[in-house]
Amino acid sequence: MNPGTNIVDPARLAQKYVDAVREEITRDSLKIRVLGLIATIDEPSLAYARATKKKFNNVGIDYDLQHVERLDLEKVILDANQDHTIHGIFVYYPVFQNQQDDYLRNQVNYRKDIEAGSIYWTQKLYTNDRHANTDSEQKALLPCTPLAIIKLLTEIGRYDENVERPINDKTVTIFNRSEVIGRPLAMMMSNDGARVYSFDINGPLLFKNAIPEETDITRAQALMESDIIITGVPSAKFKKISTSEFRDGTLCINFSSISNFEEDVQEHTDVFIPRVGPMTVAMCIRNTLRLYRNLHE
Amino acid sequence: MNPGTNIVDPARLAQKYVDAVREEITRDSLKIRVLGLIATIDEPSLAYARATKKKFNNVGIDYDLQHVERLDLEKVILDANQDHTIHGIFVYYPVFQNQQDDYLRNQVNYRKDIEAGSIYWTQKLYTNDRHANTDSEQKALLPCTPLAIIKLLTEIGRYDENVERPINDKTVTIFNRSEVIGRPLAMMMSNDGARVYSFDINGPLLFKNAIPEETDITRAQALMESDIIITGVPSAKFKKISTSEFRDGTLCINFSSISNFEEDVQEHTDVFIPRVGPMTVAMCIRNTLRLYRNLHE
Repeated sequence: MNPGTNIVDPARLAQKYVDAVREEITRDSLKIRVLGLIATIDEPSLAYARATKKKFNNVGIDYDLQHVERLDLEKVILDANQDHTIHGIFVYYPVFQNQQDDYLRNQVNYRKDIEAGSIYWTQKLYTNDRHANTDSEQKALLPCTPLAIIKLLTEIGRYDENVERPINDKTVTIFNRSEVIGRPLAMMMSNDGARVYSFDINGPLLFKNAIPEETDITRAQALMESDIIITGVPSAKFKKISTSEFRDGTLCINFSSISNFEEDVQEHTDVFIPRVGPMTVAMCIRNTLRLYRNLHE
Repeated sequence: MNPGTNIVDPARLAQKYVDAVREEITRDSLKIRVLGLIATIDEPSLAYARATKKKFNNVGIDYDLQHVERLDLEKVILDANQDHTIHGIFVYYPVFQNQQDDYLRNQVNYRKDIEAGSIYWTQKLYTNDRHANTDSEQKALLPCTPLAIIKLLTEIGRYDENVERPINDKTVTIFNRSEVIGRPLAMMMSNDGARVYSFDINGPLLFKNAIPEETDITRAQALMESDIIITGVPSAKFKKISTSEFRDGTLCINFSSISNFEEDVQEHTDVFIPRVGPMTVAMCIRNTLRLYRNLHE
């Protein structure tokens, strides 16, 4: 296999989801407004923010990108929660790079939390509560990045959403057990039939049928067993996964800002997805429409 | 001054608060029950848990200490939220040593959150909302450890709670800006008149009148300016504060599990408070009574 030929471009796979949102917004002439809040003046981050604005604009969503000082962010979020002309709020993290970022994430009212990263939504996932709220028959939102990873797998034919257990009997290893990505992803994939080894800096857990259990599996064992390896460790200290650590043909996905795989990974994988970002934004756009339909109209 | 003579024992200062709670519970024959949940089998942690149980028992509170597997903790908390015979829930952290601990902290219903460490209570502090809830004229709870530090200062005559600005014009440096201790403490002390330099691993902020602002002060400058230095960095990587870094007579408080000061600190301080724990437990006991009076009776 030629290097690079099995690398999946998430932007290409995201297009149909983005198109579907645009068609619905156009058809029904929806007026949806999102407030994007960025606290950094770091140019790559600003470029990323402008790119997301463009993606929202392209589907017909009014995306108001504002720079705010990080110390003003809480007040701006609380004001935006009260502003009935704003239907969604998107905050660019990291801001404080500590627990205060989690605090801020939970200041966004759930009706405007298009990333679905607040405890309101993740708790529904963890406690298997499928409803958007107690008054609603609408389905709960799912957090953007875990949902994006599942949609990428769906688009490449590895996750059949039409069957009861779309990823039955597959073994998955995930490096990252954050509350916004790694833990929800382990819950979702194990609920859909996979055995999921979930590693963080303190060790592994094994998720089966959306129930975590203790395990003493090693990194080496978990990787060698895996059909799918998913990484999201934004640290140079993480020992990059080398091709000798997994079986040829294993599907590899990296959602960290830095690659957690050695450079030659694509020569030994069935499919390599080096980044997830464009699908995450697509899911965010999709969540925006769902929140508008379910909780604003 | 002889080494050690100016070391304050927080247990001794906590006694009057504990006694006041015991008297009220005895006088009114209150039946209050707290559920203590510990997920570790580490013996020092268990010994600490048994010691806190004894302290609750000593004031007449029924303290049910239970060992639960960490993976069962969420369900046990959610069940305890529903159990009307339980008035307070105390969870021994760390459990997972990652964001999941913050998630768990926020699963405790605010009416039973005797540590006042959930976002429900800290948000009230950060947004200057003084009421326990929208139906109540009762005052909001304050998180235990920040409150404990202020009570220790009060007891040694450095925090006059009877005046409008109890710590007016004092300069304070705090190493720790966690959501449960360092940030609330900076808000509370600056609201009471102090200039507070708040350091975390990413740098400093300056709090004045409960409003944070950016600052480029260095550790060296902040320490030399300080009347009070408060540390809570549970990491061996933190460079311990040496006596050459602050003026003779500065009041020093350490609330970390490991001391963040060099060993000879007490020879150069006015007062050294090497630990806060016993006062924290006293404030927790006090919060338990307040929650019972305000939201359960």
